[in-house]
Amino acid sequence: ELTDLMASAVTTPLLAGVSLLITAGPTREAIDPVRYLSNHSSGKMGYALAKAAQQLGAQVTLVSGPVALSTPFGCRRIDVQSAQQMHQAVMAEVANMDIFIGCAAVADYRPAQQVEQKIKKNRDEMTLSLVKNPDILSDVAARPDRPFVVGFAAETQDMEHYARDKLSRKRLDMIAANDVSKQNIGFNSEQNALSVFWPSGETQLPLCDKHSLALQLLQVIAEQYKEKQDAQDRRKDTGSADR
Amino acid sequence: ELTDLMASAVTTPLLAGVSLLITAGPTREAIDPVRYLSNHSSGKMGYALAKAAQQLGAQVTLVSGPVALSTPFGCRRIDVQSAQQMHQAVMAEVANMDIFIGCAAVADYRPAQQVEQKIKKNRDEMTLSLVKNPDILSDVAARPDRPFVVGFAAETQDMEHYARDKLSRKRLDMIAANDVSKQNIGFNSEQNALSVFWPSGETQLPLCDKHSLALQLLQVIAEQYKEKQDAQDRRKDTGSADR
Repeated sequence: ELTDLMASAVTTPLLAGVSLLITAGPTREAIDPVRYLSNHSSGKMGYALAKAAQQLGAQVTLVSGPVALSTPFGCRRIDVQSAQQMHQAVMAEVANMDIFIGCAAVADYRPAQQVEQKIKKNRDEMTLSLVKNPDILSDVAARPDRPFVVGFAAETQDMEHYARDKLSRKRLDMIAANDVSKQNIGFNSEQNALSVFWPSGETQLPLCDKHSLALQLLQVIAEQYKEKQDAQDRRKDTGSADR
Repeated sequence: ELTDLMASAVTTPLLAGVSLLITAGPTREAIDPVRYLSNHSSGKMGYALAKAAQQLGAQVTLVSGPVALSTPFGCRRIDVQSAQQMHQAVMAEVANMDIFIGCAAVADYRPAQQVEQKIKKNRDEMTLSLVKNPDILSDVAARPDRPFVVGFAAETQDMEHYARDKLSRKRLDMIAANDVSKQNIGFNSEQNALSVFWPSGETQLPLCDKHSLALQLLQVIAEQYKEKQDAQDRRKDTGSADR
């Protein structure tokens, strides 16, 4: 089936003419020049999506946190460190995008104060005050000219519950969830499995290598993206007829 | 001079018969299964030291935090994540070591509580309670059969002051300090410069690539290590003569 997908992609690329913005990797939230807060993320899933989307004909822009991966062929890459920098880069790029995939593991919180010099601590205990970072997915979804918005959810329990909650709360078009408590998938693994939810449906993409998984997920995204486009076109047509 | 060092190393290896334990990379202190605290460290300096020491004839054991580097030829590598795991691995290996180089950027603090499930946080602010991690350098230096102990100090100000303070407070034999506020050195850079201090002296190793710097630092370490050995042998001789 994948071979068919690849073969058909050569003749009629599934994402031809589609502009796609993808975030990947972790963010790092500086405590001081030496210490930081971060999330586990190798960036492999996001980079696999960027590579596969480019192969399927899309114009890909990749906003990447710090990872040890090389830029996929044909993709434009913007490097950032913090969630605030990633938010800024995404907002600067999102205006003419058709699809946004937020695959980065963005830190929810950052230290309330970032210290310029290395903190000298001799106490046995310390407390770190954190404040909430901007919510990139919500802010993209709140735009009047919003693209088709796909989020990711890394969960350790009640996956469908939390994924569906995030889907509706952040007004996403689709969410891809994985259970990071399973040892053989997610994070630094070469393989992954995803449960994909959208308002009117869901599908399971079973365990396989991240590149194959990326191609399958992009097929699901492309279908729902086109369905939403068609629905919007129908609404526009109805609107014109009314006038 | 470096070529001389390399050439002479081929005929009479500087560190032949010497067993060397090196820590490298950062540690990661889990907040929950997704989030962690860490330090900036690519592991490049520690890996360069391991490679150079092996080339100079030493038996090298490398205790490494999470890095994107391959194991230097001929070195034994033990992978760890947290400071507690690194402490445990070092203590299990240090007994018969001649030289210990603590090059890892070990997190001083870890979250007081590590949560099994991903923390769900909806508040605008949160506080993270941290407790002090075990001090690997101090604990190695406190052993009765201690090896020659070399520490590192990444500083952003008053470098010599803090480095000399760490040298005496932790009872190290030597400390290599770099100014991480300078853009072209340290952390993820390919180059570095070091100021090296020991109780009775100091030397400057100017900016160069990390492999050359590692060879130079190992030469300084080897000199002081042998001087300390000779002094101990003299004390033993005097001790025997007294009887």
